[in-house]
Amino acid sequence: MLLQASPEPMRVATWARTIKPSTINEMLKLTAGPGLTSFALGLPAPELFPTEAYARAAERVLTTDPHALQYGPSFRPLKTQVVEIMRARGVECTEDQVVMTAGAQQALSILSRFLLDPGGQLMLEQVAYTGFQQVIEPFRAELLVVPTSLEHGIDVDAVEAYLAAGAKPAFLYVVSDGHNPLGISLDVASRDRLVELARRFRVPIVEDDAYGLLYYGEEGSALAPMRAQEDQWVFYVGSFSKVLAPSARVGWIIAPRELVAAISGTKDTCDLDMNNFAQRVVSSFLAEGHLDAHLDMLRREYTIRRDLMDEALREHFPAGTRWRVPSNGALMWAELPEGIDCGALLPEAVAAERVAYVPGNAFATDGSRHASNCMRLNFSFPGREEIRQGMAALGRVMRAHAA
Amino acid sequence: MLLQASPEPMRVATWARTIKPSTINEMLKLTAGPGLTSFALGLPAPELFPTEAYARAAERVLTTDPHALQYGPSFRPLKTQVVEIMRARGVECTEDQVVMTAGAQQALSILSRFLLDPGGQLMLEQVAYTGFQQVIEPFRAELLVVPTSLEHGIDVDAVEAYLAAGAKPAFLYVVSDGHNPLGISLDVASRDRLVELARRFRVPIVEDDAYGLLYYGEEGSALAPMRAQEDQWVFYVGSFSKVLAPSARVGWIIAPRELVAAISGTKDTCDLDMNNFAQRVVSSFLAEGHLDAHLDMLRREYTIRRDLMDEALREHFPAGTRWRVPSNGALMWAELPEGIDCGALLPEAVAAERVAYVPGNAFATDGSRHASNCMRLNFSFPGREEIRQGMAALGRVMRAHAA
Repeated sequence: MLLQASPEPMRVATWARTIKPSTINEMLKLTAGPGLTSFALGLPAPELFPTEAYARAAERVLTTDPHALQYGPSFRPLKTQVVEIMRARGVECTEDQVVMTAGAQQALSILSRFLLDPGGQLMLEQVAYTGFQQVIEPFRAELLVVPTSLEHGIDVDAVEAYLAAGAKPAFLYVVSDGHNPLGISLDVASRDRLVELARRFRVPIVEDDAYGLLYYGEEGSALAPMRAQEDQWVFYVGSFSKVLAPSARVGWIIAPRELVAAISGTKDTCDLDMNNFAQRVVSSFLAEGHLDAHLDMLRREYTIRRDLMDEALREHFPAGTRWRVPSNGALMWAELPEGIDCGALLPEAVAAERVAYVPGNAFATDGSRHASNCMRLNFSFPGREEIRQGMAALGRVMRAHAA
Repeated sequence: MLLQASPEPMRVATWARTIKPSTINEMLKLTAGPGLTSFALGLPAPELFPTEAYARAAERVLTTDPHALQYGPSFRPLKTQVVEIMRARGVECTEDQVVMTAGAQQALSILSRFLLDPGGQLMLEQVAYTGFQQVIEPFRAELLVVPTSLEHGIDVDAVEAYLAAGAKPAFLYVVSDGHNPLGISLDVASRDRLVELARRFRVPIVEDDAYGLLYYGEEGSALAPMRAQEDQWVFYVGSFSKVLAPSARVGWIIAPRELVAAISGTKDTCDLDMNNFAQRVVSSFLAEGHLDAHLDMLRREYTIRRDLMDEALREHFPAGTRWRVPSNGALMWAELPEGIDCGALLPEAVAAERVAYVPGNAFATDGSRHASNCMRLNFSFPGREEIRQGMAALGRVMRAHAA
């Protein structure tokens, strides 16, 4: 398809010959029209962005910091602030274990490039974040696909069975909290066992914690990520995208100290290590002490939106629909009765009811029809009234097609 | 080396086992001390940044644009502005040929990932931009190394000889203007022949024009890049880093229209296509019409600095030193008399005279001692007086070691 437009073929890299348009970009296009309620993307609520404080931070940085517009290495004060945030998350680390990145997405890309050879083995769940699937596309990796469920998340027995049988994946990709797309968080036993397996079989875990700071229980009730237990075999990925502003493109990796120079070098192969202005603005925002109050506000509002979505699922969706109320993040996964094809119904939902979601099959890692009766719903972007009305409308579409 | 720190080896990707620290980061460390005059890096002059106008643009965007902090696709108005800038540069293109990137560096990384298979062939000059060498490191490519010279730049006969003998590189990397590290610009005949070779042998050229907008001749005297002649076989890379602010991390690719979706998909595999705030600030800065006046000012000041460096080379450097006065960019290449080892003398220059440069050998692509009697000198970052005094000091070191 790529090759026809040129008079004679231009050779592109092998993986690029089958490159697919990104789900997120397709969704952005689909949901760009007016009057559409989107449960599709994992976007934060734009009306809750700390725009004024961010603008003041930007101004402060530009008027006081002569390095703000220049190239520069990672901004050390921001690393110190990341260390503090990690401590509040239950993780002890130091500045020399931190690599700053252009968001969690680039962190995943860098770690894949660092750990994974082209054609190498990789272990991940049967449904996984589409962005991560894009990240690994160029590697044409051999995927070791592990079952996962709404009840327990990643099937730890299946991980162990693979490893015990001699599989040597470059790493295991895990989301401990606010799983994308399932919305769930792993229990303590699963975390403990995964860490034990990583140590025993000497297989690194890449722990994607993009949603970890958004937890909705009592103060201090959040579980610590796996990185809290293990600083050699767990690479942790964090981000300011969901809790501050996605367009800052500031995320981080916590890595074994002795690998940090090489991981920074891997970032250099992507775009050099120099997102200077954004790093300094985020750091200035944090230095003013805005993060805690902002997080509290986000948690309060997102809890309300999550509960409205839960209510609407009970009230409007077909009997037999299954879901869990997440303790973290911005996503809820609904399993509709078998036979409902959520992919096939999306165009109808958009056209007739002006409501969008991501069909479960979009997350399937084994190319099967897996999860075709499922959908991922986001509760952070739509407002309260949009959730009430949009979920009722979506329920109408689904009920009309339920047996 | 990487592997010893862990109690048992952690397997990392094959290429990453020999990863080297980046030259630029090493240089940033080396030149971070106080009182040092650095001719080492290709940094713009920080005192010439349009900080006030940039701050106003940032404020304008944050107060008026509700999408500024959100995820989002490429910012279409900025693509239109890039098309206008390209027209002023002599290139006709349209918005649907533009891919926005996180600086020229990411553009090179994306194009490499898109065009080059791991272990594939790649053609480049005997000395080449270290950042590009980092970009291709993970691919462990087979390098077809072409001679290059201060007089003529890339040896087009050698390119033709390779291709005529059946070489099929994924692409040829060329800097037409303000070559890094040589500082030179290709003449019309070389550009014409390279375009003709690309068409005849169906080998794409990646044309890195990071410095192209910084030209120092009469109004309109700049040569057009090769992309002006060929829209299928030349991938053009541009950037706002050298002419506006490196920390914006905004660059672009001009590609064949039918490949743009796949190249955007390739960007998604790196960090998703969402440098939203920076794109909008740059766009707002451009919309206010600031770029032309800013460029005029940069050209005037950099011309003065370039000429001071030329003068100092004549006055203070050993007899037999060769260099050319660049018509573009920010870099000058000095070839000292054979036998002077610029790598070995750098520590002395830094310690005794507090002056830094990059030894020529750092740019060698064939791992040889090539260019060990050369140095790359930057004239955009140091001020006029620093150039006068720093170049005199550097000349003292070099003369002391000349035969």
